[in-house]
Amino acid sequence: MVEGVKALVFDVFGTVVDWRSSIIADLEAFGRARNVRADWVGLTDAWRAGYQPAMDRVRKGELPWTHIDVLHRMVLDRLLVEFKVEGLSEADKAHVNRVWHRLNGWPDAVEGLTRLKRKFIISTLSNGNTSLLVNMAKHAGLPWDCVLSAETFKAYKPDPRAYLGAAEVLGLKPGEVMMTAAHNSDLVAASMQGLRTAFVARPKEYGPHQKKDMKAEHAFDVVATDFVDLAAKLGA
Amino acid sequence: MVEGVKALVFDVFGTVVDWRSSIIADLEAFGRARNVRADWVGLTDAWRAGYQPAMDRVRKGELPWTHIDVLHRMVLDRLLVEFKVEGLSEADKAHVNRVWHRLNGWPDAVEGLTRLKRKFIISTLSNGNTSLLVNMAKHAGLPWDCVLSAETFKAYKPDPRAYLGAAEVLGLKPGEVMMTAAHNSDLVAASMQGLRTAFVARPKEYGPHQKKDMKAEHAFDVVATDFVDLAAKLGA
Repeated sequence: MVEGVKALVFDVFGTVVDWRSSIIADLEAFGRARNVRADWVGLTDAWRAGYQPAMDRVRKGELPWTHIDVLHRMVLDRLLVEFKVEGLSEADKAHVNRVWHRLNGWPDAVEGLTRLKRKFIISTLSNGNTSLLVNMAKHAGLPWDCVLSAETFKAYKPDPRAYLGAAEVLGLKPGEVMMTAAHNSDLVAASMQGLRTAFVARPKEYGPHQKKDMKAEHAFDVVATDFVDLAAKLGA
Repeated sequence: MVEGVKALVFDVFGTVVDWRSSIIADLEAFGRARNVRADWVGLTDAWRAGYQPAMDRVRKGELPWTHIDVLHRMVLDRLLVEFKVEGLSEADKAHVNRVWHRLNGWPDAVEGLTRLKRKFIISTLSNGNTSLLVNMAKHAGLPWDCVLSAETFKAYKPDPRAYLGAAEVLGLKPGEVMMTAAHNSDLVAASMQGLRTAFVARPKEYGPHQKKDMKAEHAFDVVATDFVDLAAKLGA
């Protein structure tokens, strides 16, 4: 079923890193250190909720190509007003915005990726921009062979150019590349372009009340409980 | 002099890997295994000599964007005739062409890069295509944080778009990025775009009769004897 796979490409936010816990902990520590009180949990969830609508403005052509650091900042500036977070300098806002560069991996991420790297090329294929992904890898110890981003192809997933572009620059056929994600829609889109698919459930990505992506909803090539299980199922 | 540098980007062919010795050894072994006799040393030197003229056809617009695997193959097909190498199947030719994915690092490369990686982002910035660089890193154990290629920017060095594109996708100012190369011309071009520069001499890159790039010919920010020396000079 997975014969001939040479590279695994990974969705990152939610699949590799636990953005929600990481951001809440980072912003709460920032708030304590700077004596700024706010609903950091609510702001984190609202920030993430603003992510797809912001990319949609690029997808629809309302905005020219704009990478995620810039989109995150546009959403953040609005939320700082809505959540009445006051007294932040420009340097503070830049620091807060870069929290997305400081996310921690799920507990199994580094061990699983390290095992998978022995047998496969492992690369990001994230809507996050390149510098965000590179800085995150340094922070979290993620041992990527290659960092591919929507920025590389100037196209946000689920645009086919992202999936096909990844295969092309890796010098592989789409069927030799396995998209790995915790999100059903990402894998369905990858599958439609001929990529193989691996689903890894992350039922706490959105916190205790997560409703979607609790399990694989389609016949993906592999379904794993975490990256160590994925490595075992792929013989790595 | 090098304060504020956050990333080192590396020329690869000749600077990180010893293409000439690697290719000669690989093709001689191939020839013995397949009982194909040829002047593999001469072919290797002619192949490399065909590299800049092939890229020039892209730079001048005679060819649309064409990556190095394809340019290498165009030159190889001509040289197999000139050097009277006969009896190779299409699979053989593809294998020979991919020798550029199987190059070995200079003896100091892995140790030096591993040290530099502790303090800096380290990335390729090579005219080689992405898959070539990724496969080479797997083969030679090169611990890149990021793989950037002329292919990423659709522009061959010394096109300014390659140098400025690297800084941009790393989220850095040109002056925060240090181009590292064994070639004076690459560093002069990088310097003109505001990048910092490190020269590492590789006086045997072209074999025993090398004439050019024996030493730094300009006032680069750092001049090192190898990557371990470079790490020491940068405090890594």
